Amino acid sequence: MEQAAAARGEARPDTLHGVDTPCLVLDVARMENNVARLRGRLGPSGVSLRPHLKTAKSVEVARRVMASPAGPATVSTLMEAERFAAAGVRDITYAVGIAPAKLGRVLDLRSRGADVAVVLDTVEQAVAVAAASRAAGDRIPALIEVDCDGHRSGVLPGDVHGLVAIGRALGEGAELRGVMTHAGESYSARGPEALRRCAEGERRAVVDAAAILRGAGLPCPVVSVGSTPTAFAAEDFTGVTEVRAGVFVFFDLVMAGIGACTVGDVAVSVLATVIGHRRDKGWILVDAGWMAMSRDRGTSRQAVDQGYGLVCDIGGEPYGDLVVVDANQEHGIVAVRPGSGGALPDLAIGDRVRILPNHACATGAQHREYRVVRGASPAVEATWDRFGGW
Amino acid sequence: MEQAAAARGEARPDTLHGVDTPCLVLDVARMENNVARLRGRLGPSGVSLRPHLKTAKSVEVARRVMASPAGPATVSTLMEAERFAAAGVRDITYAVGIAPAKLGRVLDLRSRGADVAVVLDTVEQAVAVAAASRAAGDRIPALIEVDCDGHRSGVLPGDVHGLVAIGRALGEGAELRGVMTHAGESYSARGPEALRRCAEGERRAVVDAAAILRGAGLPCPVVSVGSTPTAFAAEDFTGVTEVRAGVFVFFDLVMAGIGACTVGDVAVSVLATVIGHRRDKGWILVDAGWMAMSRDRGTSRQAVDQGYGLVCDIGGEPYGDLVVVDANQEHGIVAVRPGSGGALPDLAIGDRVRILPNHACATGAQHREYRVVRGASPAVEATWDRFGGW
Repeated sequence: MEQAAAARGEARPDTLHGVDTPCLVLDVARMENNVARLRGRLGPSGVSLRPHLKTAKSVEVARRVMASPAGPATVSTLMEAERFAAAGVRDITYAVGIAPAKLGRVLDLRSRGADVAVVLDTVEQAVAVAAASRAAGDRIPALIEVDCDGHRSGVLPGDVHGLVAIGRALGEGAELRGVMTHAGESYSARGPEALRRCAEGERRAVVDAAAILRGAGLPCPVVSVGSTPTAFAAEDFTGVTEVRAGVFVFFDLVMAGIGACTVGDVAVSVLATVIGHRRDKGWILVDAGWMAMSRDRGTSRQAVDQGYGLVCDIGGEPYGDLVVVDANQEHGIVAVRPGSGGALPDLAIGDRVRILPNHACATGAQHREYRVVRGASPAVEATWDRFGGW
Repeated sequence: MEQAAAARGEARPDTLHGVDTPCLVLDVARMENNVARLRGRLGPSGVSLRPHLKTAKSVEVARRVMASPAGPATVSTLMEAERFAAAGVRDITYAVGIAPAKLGRVLDLRSRGADVAVVLDTVEQAVAVAAASRAAGDRIPALIEVDCDGHRSGVLPGDVHGLVAIGRALGEGAELRGVMTHAGESYSARGPEALRRCAEGERRAVVDAAAILRGAGLPCPVVSVGSTPTAFAAEDFTGVTEVRAGVFVFFDLVMAGIGACTVGDVAVSVLATVIGHRRDKGWILVDAGWMAMSRDRGTSRQAVDQGYGLVCDIGGEPYGDLVVVDANQEHGIVAVRPGSGGALPDLAIGDRVRILPNHACATGAQHREYRVVRGASPAVEATWDRFGGW
């Protein structure tokens, strides 16, 4: 397609002025800075980083985020595990409660040399994992999920009976590798003090659970916490062996609203073209609707509602209070934020903007490639694949 | 993957008990019924159906929805136009305001024999389309978008100056094919009388605009309306030549909430596996989170909020008031609808459910294939590709 456009003498396809829109843009300078920031924060504590690759779903990004080409890494689907294993990642935690029917794929991966660990929170799952391990002659490693904040799944941290029963059931053929938790509630926290409390609650939940297991004579080498807000807020990692975090690689408007980053740290955006105006309504129409931005409205419950995204110029600088106030499938309606005194910029049909997303994981999932730029330069340095599916 | 599972003696991958989850399931019996219903409704009026293929994004589905293998069809992206043209569709309206940089791809398609028409609502766009037409020696057909309800883009129907100026600008090399509108407001309408008013407003807007163009001596052969709610509510199609509608093929919970269909008409669902319980909270955890369901919460503003989806058994029958009350990326939290006196069904880890979506277009977009079933049978008759991208 781009070749055809170039043949007609249109804008060069190797810049943001020439690529087809809408598309996902990744500023690798911001990404590298985000990764360095978390590594710098965790370094002194001695805690290892097991980045969650569900945000990027890209081998090229993974290689720039992981400590080594072999990992460690966290994934949210077996498709991710398979893609990353095929690219040489050898240490993978599949961090969604295991369904017994999925153990065949886990064993396939393990038989090809990837140390894939599963997560569970019931005796039924532990029995199934142990049985599959015995049948395959391969001790599948499992982490027990602990619920630190009532947000999702997991054993309650003080549930001695539950933790020990699961640990013992795993012992019948599988490997009890440790405990893990995710402070999902931190996404709703406001302010540094609330975030620190989330982080400390997350730490205590797994440290206490690990103590229960060890007290019962069970092993617990891995004590894993993980959410981007708590990774940046935690002041104490005592007893924790690893941190899982994903969205920090790109950051997004929800993270900026929480205070985990600034808007200037957000490394992904959607490039869009102006396709119309409704001057009577103060609207600019662009070709990035919810299909390109996702339906995620994560900032709607924050102090600053960013609509479906914050609009920037093609260099990535916000215009100010310009947001995507509404979205159809392939139409974005851009307007000054309600209540703001800002003015609509003078954008003509065909002009291009970049839109920062509410939620990098959700917006990324709408795309199958990254157009890679560095800082404010419009030059597209590379195009990196990303994948989806299960 | 399925072969590996089958080799281990697990459930057969050619039934809903054996396929990997989460996945998108299409009940073709319901789909055929939905298509027949709209065709039956439009038949007596003599108005043609130009189905919007943005919902299905599948050649296999398109062939079962279009009047002929050559179309007509409506699309929302040039990727759709290219995929469907490659599959033999010859009459395509690209129904999102055209950006001049996209005309190269439109001309490429036209040079390969697909009659692709574009949509616009400004003189600037008309001048660009006329110039590109002259340069290519190919009169690109264009429809003028009319705004019937203040919902999105379009010329106001009474804007004589605007309509005629655009029509004349197109005449300088391009082809003025007609007028089109979309009653976006109908998605928020409640009750048959409100829907009839939306439909009549939609009809009047384009019929009036067509009269203005013809009164100025300009051609206007096509007078096009289109939304699923108005397609089913309209009582009068006088002056209208075609109806565009998309979501009617599958329907969804938003359409059921509006009254355009019943829950029993919804032809797509997401197959999910139970991965945990939180009995203390009345939750069942499944492996379909927002990645599988989309972030669309379209029923949140309706009388019955369906959360992230309505939970059915594997045969597609709703359990009752069982919905996905919250979702993480790969976790769905299933519970009895708040305020309901219903009971949680007895589902074990590994059991499978089907979840009806709020919005078929958004949920479909999260998947790259359909598992095709017929009625309550768990047999997977076929797997049909679907695509995304722009």
